[in-house]
Amino acid sequence: DYQHVQVPFEITLWIMLASLAKIGFHLYNKLPSVVPESCLLIFVGLIMGGIIYGLNDKSPPVMDSDIFFLYLLPPIVLDAGYFMPSRPFFENIGTILLYAVVGTIWNVFGIGFSLYGICQVKVFRLQDVSLLHNLLFGSLIAAVDPVAVLAVFEEIHVNEKLHILVFGESLLNDAVTVVLYKLFRSFCEMPTIKTVDIFAGVGKFFVVGLGGVFVGLIFGMTAAFTTRFTKDIRVIEPLFVFLYSYLSYLTAEMFHLSGIVAIIACAMGMKRYVEANISLKSHTTVKYFMKMWSSVSDTLIFIFLGVSTIGENHEWNWPYICFTVIFCLIWRALGVLVLTFFVNRFHVNTITSKDQFIIAYGGLRGAICFSLVFLLPDFHRKKLFIAATTVVILFTVFIQGMTIRPLVDLLAVKRKRESAPTVGEQIHIRFLDHLLAGIEDISGHWGQYYWKDKLEYFNSKYLQKILLRDYDQPKSSIVLLYEKLERKHAIELAEAGQLGHAPSHPSLLCSVFLCSSNDRTVITDKKLEDTLNPDVLENIQEILARNLYRIRRTGPAYNRHTLPGETEPVEHAKEILILRHKSL
Amino acid sequence: DYQHVQVPFEITLWIMLASLAKIGFHLYNKLPSVVPESCLLIFVGLIMGGIIYGLNDKSPPVMDSDIFFLYLLPPIVLDAGYFMPSRPFFENIGTILLYAVVGTIWNVFGIGFSLYGICQVKVFRLQDVSLLHNLLFGSLIAAVDPVAVLAVFEEIHVNEKLHILVFGESLLNDAVTVVLYKLFRSFCEMPTIKTVDIFAGVGKFFVVGLGGVFVGLIFGMTAAFTTRFTKDIRVIEPLFVFLYSYLSYLTAEMFHLSGIVAIIACAMGMKRYVEANISLKSHTTVKYFMKMWSSVSDTLIFIFLGVSTIGENHEWNWPYICFTVIFCLIWRALGVLVLTFFVNRFHVNTITSKDQFIIAYGGLRGAICFSLVFLLPDFHRKKLFIAATTVVILFTVFIQGMTIRPLVDLLAVKRKRESAPTVGEQIHIRFLDHLLAGIEDISGHWGQYYWKDKLEYFNSKYLQKILLRDYDQPKSSIVLLYEKLERKHAIELAEAGQLGHAPSHPSLLCSVFLCSSNDRTVITDKKLEDTLNPDVLENIQEILARNLYRIRRTGPAYNRHTLPGETEPVEHAKEILILRHKSL
Repeated sequence: DYQHVQVPFEITLWIMLASLAKIGFHLYNKLPSVVPESCLLIFVGLIMGGIIYGLNDKSPPVMDSDIFFLYLLPPIVLDAGYFMPSRPFFENIGTILLYAVVGTIWNVFGIGFSLYGICQVKVFRLQDVSLLHNLLFGSLIAAVDPVAVLAVFEEIHVNEKLHILVFGESLLNDAVTVVLYKLFRSFCEMPTIKTVDIFAGVGKFFVVGLGGVFVGLIFGMTAAFTTRFTKDIRVIEPLFVFLYSYLSYLTAEMFHLSGIVAIIACAMGMKRYVEANISLKSHTTVKYFMKMWSSVSDTLIFIFLGVSTIGENHEWNWPYICFTVIFCLIWRALGVLVLTFFVNRFHVNTITSKDQFIIAYGGLRGAICFSLVFLLPDFHRKKLFIAATTVVILFTVFIQGMTIRPLVDLLAVKRKRESAPTVGEQIHIRFLDHLLAGIEDISGHWGQYYWKDKLEYFNSKYLQKILLRDYDQPKSSIVLLYEKLERKHAIELAEAGQLGHAPSHPSLLCSVFLCSSNDRTVITDKKLEDTLNPDVLENIQEILARNLYRIRRTGPAYNRHTLPGETEPVEHAKEILILRHKSL
Repeated sequence: DYQHVQVPFEITLWIMLASLAKIGFHLYNKLPSVVPESCLLIFVGLIMGGIIYGLNDKSPPVMDSDIFFLYLLPPIVLDAGYFMPSRPFFENIGTILLYAVVGTIWNVFGIGFSLYGICQVKVFRLQDVSLLHNLLFGSLIAAVDPVAVLAVFEEIHVNEKLHILVFGESLLNDAVTVVLYKLFRSFCEMPTIKTVDIFAGVGKFFVVGLGGVFVGLIFGMTAAFTTRFTKDIRVIEPLFVFLYSYLSYLTAEMFHLSGIVAIIACAMGMKRYVEANISLKSHTTVKYFMKMWSSVSDTLIFIFLGVSTIGENHEWNWPYICFTVIFCLIWRALGVLVLTFFVNRFHVNTITSKDQFIIAYGGLRGAICFSLVFLLPDFHRKKLFIAATTVVILFTVFIQGMTIRPLVDLLAVKRKRESAPTVGEQIHIRFLDHLLAGIEDISGHWGQYYWKDKLEYFNSKYLQKILLRDYDQPKSSIVLLYEKLERKHAIELAEAGQLGHAPSHPSLLCSVFLCSSNDRTVITDKKLEDTLNPDVLENIQEILARNLYRIRRTGPAYNRHTLPGETEPVEHAKEILILRHKSL
């Protein structure tokens, strides 16, 4: 009875296949270090598409644009938004927006007009492609793809600023792409275009982008507020993070706003409060599940990209295709050069020419263009556009994706520092922030530090009181960081302590216990110490430490809504600790 | 553009509503302690159904049986199987199977025949309901529902044996229900029934049940085998647990086997190996997500049950409905009495009459009957069956579900012990197991201990070598338990240590550090100690300890496939620990 279970069965099988492919690549350690995973996955997809094509003698199924936009894209963007390093992002927000908005518009019109120029050459037999169609094509091919950028940039470890510039641009240009794509699409269907329509289009930019931010923040704050009340049912805490961010995406899409911008605003807005409200294990689950989900989505997208490439819905007009690739490269390079020139004039911390080259070269195209080109209204040259998009994607992902790592090595681009700043450094950074905010306030210059300070004030004065559960007093984030480090350290201790379980290597935890019990014994059993020799004493102490340790019980048995050892044992341990503390 | 996002949007909204309802109940602490959550949720569903009915003036949407069986039921069963306490389950497997197989058949035929008797009474105007239809109805109404049983029994905390008897029966009777339901359904459509068909039906029991176990174990072992190779991509580990168990369910359903039995076999089979292979954080994610998912499914099921109750697809023939409720109660009580009589003759540890009462009384019906009755082929009395099923479900969930807790209190049924056995007790249990296995082996009696021992041997000799990644030597499970406790303890230490962060209460971890640095200082700075008074020394030591501690760095920044602080910091900590260990 295959009919009955077909839909979930096939979905599960696809996910399974994608995960197994991922495991397969990682079994051979050398492969992923040379070829980016995205290329390998597209390759697997190409082979599978070829097999399906060979067996059925018809085009394999094409990735459905709806599935892509509704189910595959949100997890990746959510992951990107939730783990976005907020400091470099906000420090470079101006530059990122410039690249994302002005840069994308520049590319769209550049590519659109120059392709229209190519269409006028009679030899190529392309005179029937109108300017509007070229601009429409430009609007979908111009945008840098966040999925492709993430997949490649995570592996080359460039410095944080460079990474956030390319990655931030790829995320925020969604608003521009949405507006331009829909604008040109509606222009294509209109008989005449009035000037009013063009101005309405310009106004839409702000509505789509800022509307997305607004929707995202609303849902993010609601999510934070909801997690205030989940203390008694910890198990459904992670759910809210996913539900609210997905709802923000869907709501934004519903109102034709930018879903990507909304989900990023939601994730960045709620992260801080949710993290403080939910339990540690819930947070681990959220983080793990987000990574897992985005990793699976990303794998599926690249495999489907490969599968969909094989087929008969292409029109191979090589001049048009080749010029598309060339114009994509040229206009992006020019755009980056011009925009960076202006950026560097207003910033102390300039973007070097090496960085500029990587920004231009890292403009990878991916599955978003691919889905958009299939969503085009039917007209006689649609297959040409599909072919051109496919070639541009494969060119950027394969050629640029595979050569960018050697180029980064060759140019000696500044790399990411391997470790995050120490607590000391963080204190200095915080100090300088306050200092600069003060200077800006005094000098009357409303710069980023001034606004950041005001936002922090608003946050601690109002938002935290509403959104956090245990809000007593403003804890310094340095203290929070310290606590986090301490907690992490204890877990590491336990994991490392596990190593030394053989009798010859007593684990560190044991020795720590020995140590603390040592102190007590010293105080209470002074006499005993005098009569026994150290070796015997140590033995007894070890036995005592181990036995004292073993009194503790394992968690209670099966319960439907809590996991074993979630509440009582902690209380139990606290009691022990308090007693022990007093005795010390 | 609501059309575009309708499907995911509505699903997300339903889930959100269910979760918010759950939070709502828990805000008022008193309510859940009197009324079981399932009743509250059905009540919410009833209200919502009423509102929808009032607004639209037509029946609210009924829960789709496909959605129920394909998407809502599997998470709950997976959770039940994964967290099933395996020892009491296997100890009572004979009794459980007796209740599940013989008991269910007894109920089906008892209810079916006696309802047929009622149909012969002319006053009730039910003569057109044939014997076969009554038996078909009996087959769907007889089975105890795992979702309803879990929801009620988790809250009343009866002793483990009683719990596993009712719960195990509700899970394993699925095979019987599937067979009988399909048998009678096909008989209804056949013109004549031959004796061969009946024998084929009996044979099917074994195929459906054992086939389910077989499919489940195959997928379980494959899952365990797959997780051997996920060392480099920890983030997708949890995925495999869910994918393989879902595939086992779908595959079993595809071949008309028992999906519930398959998923339970899969979960119980893989648990042990998967747990050993995957990382600790992955395991937390698996456990949390399973609980979360099943909790949401369960909430949705009860809400939908309430919503679907409102409507016009009922035929209210009260005599038939009332007699259904009465027969359900009587036949179950009789069945439990008779079967327990035989069980008690062959067991030392007998089932008391109080326990028997609770077993009979705990036979709740739920969403499975409800979905099955909607799947019935259309015939003119279908609406009567729907009405009768609805009343039986509401009666058992509301009346029995709400009174079972006071009854348990009143009868002073033996409760679950609050804490799990200590390590000492576990050693004794293990010891007795080995002893009994030896005795059984010598006396030539192939009892449960004998088989358990053989299975353990097979497991450690062959299975573990194939399925586990780091399989060096057979570690005693007591050692594993000890390691687990130690790990848990360290985390608790950190969480509790966090409490004492105010300057007046130095946290225990700090004092531990102080202690270890103390030792070292004593050795290296003998001279210093002589010149400084203890207070100053302690201050310096504290500063030193804190500063030494702060040198450690936070995790690396954003990376797509790993979470911060997953690999390197552990290595880093180990290095520190080894150095420190040597110095001690």
